[in-house]
Amino acid sequence: MRIKAIGGEFALIKRITKAAKGRDIIKGIGDDAAVIKASGKLLAITTDTLVEGDHFSFKWFTPKQVGKKAIEINASDIGAMGAVPKYVLVSLVLPADIDVETVDEIYNGMWEAGKKYNTKIIGGNMTHGKELVIDIDMIGEAKKENLKFRSNAKPGDFIFVSGDLGASTAGLKLFLKNVKGHDYVKKKHLEPEAKFYKVRKFLKYINAMIDVSDGLASDITRICEQSNVGAVIFKDNVPIKDETRRAAKDVGKDAVDYALYGGEDFELIYTVSEKKLNKVKGFLVGEITKKKGVRLYSDGKERLISKHGYDHFLIK
Amino acid sequence: MRIKAIGGEFALIKRITKAAKGRDIIKGIGDDAAVIKASGKLLAITTDTLVEGDHFSFKWFTPKQVGKKAIEINASDIGAMGAVPKYVLVSLVLPADIDVETVDEIYNGMWEAGKKYNTKIIGGNMTHGKELVIDIDMIGEAKKENLKFRSNAKPGDFIFVSGDLGASTAGLKLFLKNVKGHDYVKKKHLEPEAKFYKVRKFLKYINAMIDVSDGLASDITRICEQSNVGAVIFKDNVPIKDETRRAAKDVGKDAVDYALYGGEDFELIYTVSEKKLNKVKGFLVGEITKKKGVRLYSDGKERLISKHGYDHFLIK
Repeated sequence: MRIKAIGGEFALIKRITKAAKGRDIIKGIGDDAAVIKASGKLLAITTDTLVEGDHFSFKWFTPKQVGKKAIEINASDIGAMGAVPKYVLVSLVLPADIDVETVDEIYNGMWEAGKKYNTKIIGGNMTHGKELVIDIDMIGEAKKENLKFRSNAKPGDFIFVSGDLGASTAGLKLFLKNVKGHDYVKKKHLEPEAKFYKVRKFLKYINAMIDVSDGLASDITRICEQSNVGAVIFKDNVPIKDETRRAAKDVGKDAVDYALYGGEDFELIYTVSEKKLNKVKGFLVGEITKKKGVRLYSDGKERLISKHGYDHFLIK
Repeated sequence: MRIKAIGGEFALIKRITKAAKGRDIIKGIGDDAAVIKASGKLLAITTDTLVEGDHFSFKWFTPKQVGKKAIEINASDIGAMGAVPKYVLVSLVLPADIDVETVDEIYNGMWEAGKKYNTKIIGGNMTHGKELVIDIDMIGEAKKENLKFRSNAKPGDFIFVSGDLGASTAGLKLFLKNVKGHDYVKKKHLEPEAKFYKVRKFLKYINAMIDVSDGLASDITRICEQSNVGAVIFKDNVPIKDETRRAAKDVGKDAVDYALYGGEDFELIYTVSEKKLNKVKGFLVGEITKKKGVRLYSDGKERLISKHGYDHFLIK
């Protein structure tokens, strides 16, 4: 594990290490590897990467927002397993022209977001390359009974989402087209947040779960494929804020497309059997079916929808 | 955790997942996060990144060798803690023009190297960017009594290295200068291997340990700084193969510089108290001192040596 000498190394290391204390952390940053004492719970482990120009642009993101986003998207994955975030490792590829303040602000953002979840940054790595790459590894803890897989949806389950969809993509499109105003959706794009806290209280009633990183259509398809089932989504039930509809309209698009294919909302999709319906909260948007394929129900008709929607990575 | 749709996705996923089975793996690739059952041992966690053009060049590396190297350098970090490799997560940033065969061969290399250590690839992530970036996260297991920190060297300890140094850097220089022949050092550069198996049998007699990723001078400095001690290295004792000396000579350099500042040998540096000297194997290259600073002893004289040597990243 390398922390390479670059200008401002000490500020960075100070920034990282201030979070890495705890009785469970036998060794934090500074050795060949970090060492933790697992508490006997199960460990959920994920990794996700942000590439400048592909996943974010400094044209509209502040460095701090980028750091926050890097943590939140991984926390969302950990949370979608029914686990809670615990440890973070940060790998950075830094281009030659990046300034120390930028890197320090990225860490500030990571630290701030990490603090929300009481995570510790226990390790990392810095090296150089042509473009800024932020790779986060996150380790969470879970109890066995809380684990939620994509593969556990049952025909007859109802499909819920935990909050409104499409706003992040709407925000991105406005940035790309240089449209003023629309603060709600822009903030949703710039400051995404993991939403697993919304479902913690009724986790035990959930059958299958996934976070919305690529849009409702894509992500429910993942549940269907792994559970060997199909789904119907009721178009009129998909929760979309008026702000999102207005933003989509301003760029000549339908906000429903953003909700289905846009992604990066980081709300949760979860399925619940009919018997447990009154135990959960959220927006009921559809139903799991024996019949394969994901269909959209609208105006009395069903049509198959593709899992391949917009590529939300392409911001150029 | 994203496995993005790119050409050849299925071959890749097949490649990755074939290694991810085991009773301790509750969930491998395919969900939001991998889930493992920690056995009650301590977990060592590390991450290291290879960037094309900075850490390797396809001018002389095959894709398979790159994949192997990515695993070996992380295994070396895990091993240097006194831990053994166990789980791997692979994050790839892929440029648009990379072909599927290349990516598949990188995975082949990872899988082959991982198999040596009986590691399982339990997760990963693929996205696109301007240049190829391979980020590996590795998790190992350790018993508390086997943990070896950089911070535990004592004045009077003898300093050992587990094998010959400087060959990898010599190999790199030959590639850069397009010099023919010298297969030994070239192979050392192209196919580095973690060497922790060399010290497993006498781990309990070791005080402090680190792997040689940046050269003997840099890495012993890390031990000294963290242990609050100094060191003397006996120049004539530094193990350097004749092949390495000849290779260095062919590009007009001194092989000792490669050993001290070159790096990527992935041998281990370890310190042992005088009483335990007969319990360990390796090359005795120096001594830990109360007096701070790292000095090189040669021809009856000592001189301070810098921890900043050649930057072995710069291959262009």
